[in-house]
Amino acid sequence: MKEQAVDLAIVGCSALMQEESGLGFEDDVTIEVKEGRIAAIGPSCRKAGQEAERWIDGRGLYALPGFINAHTHVAMTLFRGAVEDVAVDSWFNDHVWPMEVNLEARDVWLGAMLGCAEMIESGVTTFVDHYFFADQVAAAVEASGLRANLGWTFLDDQGDTGLGRSIAFSEEWNGGAAGRITTSVAPHAPYTCSDRQLSLAASAAERLGVRVHIHAAEHLEQTEASVRERGMTPVQQLDRAGVLAAGALIAHGCGVVEDDLSLLEASRDRVAFAHCPKVYLKHGLAPLTPIRALLERGVAVGLGTDGAAGCNTLDVAESLRLMALTQKHEERDARWMPLNTALQLAGPGSAAAVGLDGLIGALAPGYRADIVLVDLSGSHCRPLHDPAAAIVYSMRASDVRTTIVDGSVLMEDRKLSTVSTQEILDEVRERLPRLLDTAHGRRMARYPLARTAEPREAG
Amino acid sequence: MKEQAVDLAIVGCSALMQEESGLGFEDDVTIEVKEGRIAAIGPSCRKAGQEAERWIDGRGLYALPGFINAHTHVAMTLFRGAVEDVAVDSWFNDHVWPMEVNLEARDVWLGAMLGCAEMIESGVTTFVDHYFFADQVAAAVEASGLRANLGWTFLDDQGDTGLGRSIAFSEEWNGGAAGRITTSVAPHAPYTCSDRQLSLAASAAERLGVRVHIHAAEHLEQTEASVRERGMTPVQQLDRAGVLAAGALIAHGCGVVEDDLSLLEASRDRVAFAHCPKVYLKHGLAPLTPIRALLERGVAVGLGTDGAAGCNTLDVAESLRLMALTQKHEERDARWMPLNTALQLAGPGSAAAVGLDGLIGALAPGYRADIVLVDLSGSHCRPLHDPAAAIVYSMRASDVRTTIVDGSVLMEDRKLSTVSTQEILDEVRERLPRLLDTAHGRRMARYPLARTAEPREAG
Repeated sequence: MKEQAVDLAIVGCSALMQEESGLGFEDDVTIEVKEGRIAAIGPSCRKAGQEAERWIDGRGLYALPGFINAHTHVAMTLFRGAVEDVAVDSWFNDHVWPMEVNLEARDVWLGAMLGCAEMIESGVTTFVDHYFFADQVAAAVEASGLRANLGWTFLDDQGDTGLGRSIAFSEEWNGGAAGRITTSVAPHAPYTCSDRQLSLAASAAERLGVRVHIHAAEHLEQTEASVRERGMTPVQQLDRAGVLAAGALIAHGCGVVEDDLSLLEASRDRVAFAHCPKVYLKHGLAPLTPIRALLERGVAVGLGTDGAAGCNTLDVAESLRLMALTQKHEERDARWMPLNTALQLAGPGSAAAVGLDGLIGALAPGYRADIVLVDLSGSHCRPLHDPAAAIVYSMRASDVRTTIVDGSVLMEDRKLSTVSTQEILDEVRERLPRLLDTAHGRRMARYPLARTAEPREAG
Repeated sequence: MKEQAVDLAIVGCSALMQEESGLGFEDDVTIEVKEGRIAAIGPSCRKAGQEAERWIDGRGLYALPGFINAHTHVAMTLFRGAVEDVAVDSWFNDHVWPMEVNLEARDVWLGAMLGCAEMIESGVTTFVDHYFFADQVAAAVEASGLRANLGWTFLDDQGDTGLGRSIAFSEEWNGGAAGRITTSVAPHAPYTCSDRQLSLAASAAERLGVRVHIHAAEHLEQTEASVRERGMTPVQQLDRAGVLAAGALIAHGCGVVEDDLSLLEASRDRVAFAHCPKVYLKHGLAPLTPIRALLERGVAVGLGTDGAAGCNTLDVAESLRLMALTQKHEERDARWMPLNTALQLAGPGSAAAVGLDGLIGALAPGYRADIVLVDLSGSHCRPLHDPAAAIVYSMRASDVRTTIVDGSVLMEDRKLSTVSTQEILDEVRERLPRLLDTAHGRRMARYPLARTAEPREAG
């Protein structure tokens, strides 16, 4: 008999684990959870598992580390599908930023709760958020049980009020929600914040022991405009302002150029990128984040969705598939982004990118118990020659049966335990006419860099 | 009271219908089905609907024309996920064609049944297939209740036996399964069939009143090799052999070049392309099918998956999303491939591509009753500002609740009525070791055109 029973045991599953040759599935595994961490994992502890406080039958299911959404604006679920088929500058200036002017604190809480429900249902256990009213997002994280790194967005237009609020939020909430919340200082972008504000953000982040979360080098034309107008790339601008020295998670980096790579390599212990392929495709951008070059220089890359106003979903399994597919296409090489690299990037790679290396992103003793159980028995996954191929190229978010964060079961057999989606949606519905009304003619800021390249002429 | 009751009525759904400005959803619609056709559709016949033989409550659901899979090899579900991360020539020569040598008739029936189950579950109501043992695929179509256009693949290596079998199959099965089966003569490709065989296939197709279904211009390097070696593009070769004159469905056309466009335009009443974006990305191909140029010249383009050995899924909703996303990326234009064009291409466009224009691909009186009901109430689709955006960018195949072909309900509330997936899989499992064994060293043919372009160097 064991001295102390474990809190939760998942018994008899196949589990994605680090093996000598890379990530691989081991069969008939028991995962024991104690005080929110994985206490033991392996075939040997099956009997002990049956003595746990709570017992989940994992037979026939595949255990993965919970998906990590390395960059989103979760409350933008409110605008999902409201703006389609417009160029990126119009998307910001004529649609999204005018709608965002309408946001009230309660809206952000509702949108965040809806997004948390969607992410739990999609097997996402951690998300990194960059938004206004970040305290409301924090409240949604507390209520939903998810893990998150949160930053309160600020723009130069708000003067130093925005900057101060972002820093104060980072200080107040770092370590919140029983440790599930970490924070970042969150300037919007080099093109919407002054160099002075970027510097102040960087030093505040260093003082607080957090990082900066920022959009930069979003597309190549933006980089080219920066070189033209400032004589440097956005990455060089971040370096000049001390942001790379402080440490940063940079979304999206499609405009990272050769000149940036040595700077990034020198900062690779503290600078990483979030890659959100679906929105780059939707915005008609090319090239995409140079993932292969970044990985070769040891710079971490995490998988994200971006906000649902652009991405439509908060489904990181979809991001994973799109990343693997588009990487092969971008590199003209079917052998690149092999399954193992894709899974590595979704797990430990994304954990490193979001600053939680060694805590999440893997199923191993000592890691936080952020676990999803996936059902690969559907006809779209069978016969199952290779579970890794099924996860990257066949599974759907709806195949996630159970989602666990910090050892707490947030969804079991597709039943949510922490969010009542219907109540949230009922309240959202009443608020939509006000949220979508842009007759006021105002917007959060101006997206300044009209793309210089013309769309390709057809045929 | 109505003179004659209808066979099936779907009551109270929102339905995708042709409106003046394009495809749009009308709410609170009843669809009446009689003798396998849509007899009436609109708000006015709701009461009549309730007098039908069978009644489906469509409230809260979205009715779409069933998805059309314009190009697949359905039995290749057997090899799903068995070959990943290899270059396209190795994929054929070292893996897939050696495995296909092992195929027996029963294998193809089982693989086809499994693929039919997956397609019904994904809302696909028609598929176009190109494979060996096509009589077994036809039997699976009969049993599953799906609609299909089938061709028996032949290669020059088989001599005239293969050609003869393909022609005989087309003749025997055209109009089979109570009219749900149509056929094509199915040479594999211009690079695996002689010009003589292509000519014979074309004249047989003309004689039988069917078309040719063939792979051609699969990627740009193939076109370049054809020009180098034969002095003409694959499309020009098809023209020379009389295939364009006979009419053809061409998969995949990523290697269609400017020189081909006028030939294709001249044949646009009988020549179309099947576009399967997921496999092009997986094989690291670029560019993709020039859809915009083809549509501008009036050439129909249909959406396909290709076989599950390359595509991993037979999910046309996934193809639809990938097409819209990659079209924006390829054309560097977020405004291109707007929602309405994407839905038009998935519906009437794909119907035209597969030679069933005016019969399927739309919800309108007189069309065959191939209908799917989709549930857009999931958190990943809400709030629902625009059902078209939800269908193209948010829905998952698992949101399809009900699939109807020719007025027969093949799946209701996600329960299949014509295929027992578990029985199929049990039998498949026993056959897999033999199917995957390539120690014999043989293969169906040789994929001759090693890609000339080197993969892009990283960094």
